[in-house]
Amino acid sequence: MDIENANAQATERMIESRPVLVGMGKALDIVPGMRENLLLHAGPPLALRSEPQGKAWDRASGPMRGAITGALIFEGKAKGEDDAQALVESGEIELEPCHHHQAVGPMAGVTSSSMSVYILENKTYGNKSYSNLNEGYGKVLRYGAYSEEVLDRLRWMEEVMAPVLADAIAASGGLDMRALLAEALHMGDEGHNRNKAGSILFTTKLAPFIAKAAPNPDVAADILRALGDNALSVLNPVMAACKGMADAGHGIEGSTIVSTMARNGTDFGIRVSGLGDHWFTAPVAVPEGLYFPGFTAEDASGDIGDSVITETAGIGGFAMASAPAIVTFVSGTPKDAVNATLEMYEICSTEHKYFSMPPLDFRGTPTGIDVRKVVETGITPRVNTGIAHKDAGVGQVGAGLVRPPMAMFEEALVAFAQTYGY
Amino acid sequence: MDIENANAQATERMIESRPVLVGMGKALDIVPGMRENLLLHAGPPLALRSEPQGKAWDRASGPMRGAITGALIFEGKAKGEDDAQALVESGEIELEPCHHHQAVGPMAGVTSSSMSVYILENKTYGNKSYSNLNEGYGKVLRYGAYSEEVLDRLRWMEEVMAPVLADAIAASGGLDMRALLAEALHMGDEGHNRNKAGSILFTTKLAPFIAKAAPNPDVAADILRALGDNALSVLNPVMAACKGMADAGHGIEGSTIVSTMARNGTDFGIRVSGLGDHWFTAPVAVPEGLYFPGFTAEDASGDIGDSVITETAGIGGFAMASAPAIVTFVSGTPKDAVNATLEMYEICSTEHKYFSMPPLDFRGTPTGIDVRKVVETGITPRVNTGIAHKDAGVGQVGAGLVRPPMAMFEEALVAFAQTYGY
Repeated sequence: MDIENANAQATERMIESRPVLVGMGKALDIVPGMRENLLLHAGPPLALRSEPQGKAWDRASGPMRGAITGALIFEGKAKGEDDAQALVESGEIELEPCHHHQAVGPMAGVTSSSMSVYILENKTYGNKSYSNLNEGYGKVLRYGAYSEEVLDRLRWMEEVMAPVLADAIAASGGLDMRALLAEALHMGDEGHNRNKAGSILFTTKLAPFIAKAAPNPDVAADILRALGDNALSVLNPVMAACKGMADAGHGIEGSTIVSTMARNGTDFGIRVSGLGDHWFTAPVAVPEGLYFPGFTAEDASGDIGDSVITETAGIGGFAMASAPAIVTFVSGTPKDAVNATLEMYEICSTEHKYFSMPPLDFRGTPTGIDVRKVVETGITPRVNTGIAHKDAGVGQVGAGLVRPPMAMFEEALVAFAQTYGY
Repeated sequence: MDIENANAQATERMIESRPVLVGMGKALDIVPGMRENLLLHAGPPLALRSEPQGKAWDRASGPMRGAITGALIFEGKAKGEDDAQALVESGEIELEPCHHHQAVGPMAGVTSSSMSVYILENKTYGNKSYSNLNEGYGKVLRYGAYSEEVLDRLRWMEEVMAPVLADAIAASGGLDMRALLAEALHMGDEGHNRNKAGSILFTTKLAPFIAKAAPNPDVAADILRALGDNALSVLNPVMAACKGMADAGHGIEGSTIVSTMARNGTDFGIRVSGLGDHWFTAPVAVPEGLYFPGFTAEDASGDIGDSVITETAGIGGFAMASAPAIVTFVSGTPKDAVNATLEMYEICSTEHKYFSMPPLDFRGTPTGIDVRKVVETGITPRVNTGIAHKDAGVGQVGAGLVRPPMAMFEEALVAFAQTYGY
């Protein structure tokens, strides 16, 4: 068994993946293993392996509790946080990572059975992946807010927007998300925290089909505005695309490539291509960045969300050189953005064939984090991220940068040595 | 009279201009001085001052003749090139520069009385400016093509698209083009040859209003596709915005700032803020760049179009540092793009307050070409441009870079010295 060959295979499969957005449907009907009493959430499992699953509530961060509560109110199963806590603690409501269901969700990532999901199909390797719909900014479920305004928005998205999007996507014949991302990286996006170009490319490509699929021009206008005014509208299909790429690179015997990174607000977790479905976890850090007016670092929740699947697939913080304008949002200078990308080449196995960065002379993005290189160099991945309020019910308070804890990579490397007998 | 003060005033007026797209209407009803037997065209006057106007045909380049012919067929006044020639030579059809009518048009820039134009209002200084609609790529009137396919497209634009756009723009309450351009420059556009981001920003902002204004969903879809699939759909309103800015900076006593640059395919012409409406002209160069498959430099027409109004206002070739990906279209490397911008600081009076470039640490674009500096440094402006086929009826064959002839700047400086008694 040759690690270099295994890693070349894992990264080639990630890079040659061509995930296409092919449809939209209710999670219950679409997502493998979904059931009515199940909530999907971001990151690794909330409860420790040694504990009963009901302990998940106890370990959940404020924004995760808020999002669970909001989703259960949305499903008509709870009236507030106390109900939600009781349902989770009794085991009546179960919690499982999105990642265990070929899915991903930004921030808390909470996805319930009657929510709609984007359906992506990897045209190269056949695997499917899923993500929920993006709500926009500020007071939103994924950041732990669950006021009536948040729920009204979710209901509109579900009842009005999702059926039209489902028809529009079907009529479009599918959207090649790798091509869309490649274009967006030439338009100042990095694909994680800056998705301005991607979101309007997405809106523009779907617009003719939305105009035809909508029941009337007012609804068409409302949906076009919801997608076009939200600079993150494409984030969720982008994440599902990255999930499809990363999954294609998973399960390669002898590979030290990281195939999952995810945070649940309490723990950061990674999985490694050659080490099966085992999560290596460690407590999350708090991101550093810029706060919205009225908030400070004191208000910040720990790092949370599946959106770090973008860095796993070679974009996001790894492609910051392509997105110098992002520093107005996450702090730093354009030079820092270039340096972030240059540093990531140190820990990556290869350079992306389809994601190139004009400011670096069209060099491919650093792709395929090698656990060995992380441990050897002491350099952990750079992650661009939103920052949630630490309390349930508040929402987003800023955006910034964060690094995963080194302990996970060390633990994974030890496990690799044990598994493969080094 | 202090030249520095005059130039500061001229450039401040250009920069503080805030042109807003407020409407659309038929040129005959809207454009000052428009009449039924008049065609507007790009650049300085075609006929020499000493010659009768009918000589314009003789001096017109292939693409200009093609566009004149197409416009006269469109207006039902000609059946082909022979008719067009006869009408122009007899004086029955008159030709005047767009610039003499507060208007601009890309490439041949030919605008006839029944064509629709974008209406822009400079909210700071009150002046209005106009531009025709963009047809897309390849075989299009502005590049001198006039086949039935070209004319069908023009008729569809006029009969179907323009009325919907007129209603949509009115319902939108107006689009701030300076804000749109500032955003597009942070998304890899330079605003002249690369308008990918600007065009989808434009499409996205108008989409909800188009969905409502269209007579039915099929028409809405067709218009959304026409705007969204054309990476130059925003070029014409961008040019009109730059015209509004440049006009606001024109007519400042004692200023050596260039307030107009334009080419008609035969001559390049400039006007200077402190030198009234006099055109300084010289024969155009042929652009250098990349050719579409099947074409070479042998096929190229001389430099043509009013689109160099973008460079006059501080974007386009002057903002290339913001658009490293453009080099795939116009040739060169991302480093060349940065150098192009850095060189333009040498001949400009100031840096733009609202147009900033992330790759240069958000430095403002070089703005306000100073005739003195051009002559003193020997550096002429850098212009990004499309390349037309030299023959009437063909269309676009490539894109590249070009510089205006130095002779005009020298002549203007001499005239300035004479006028102001230096």
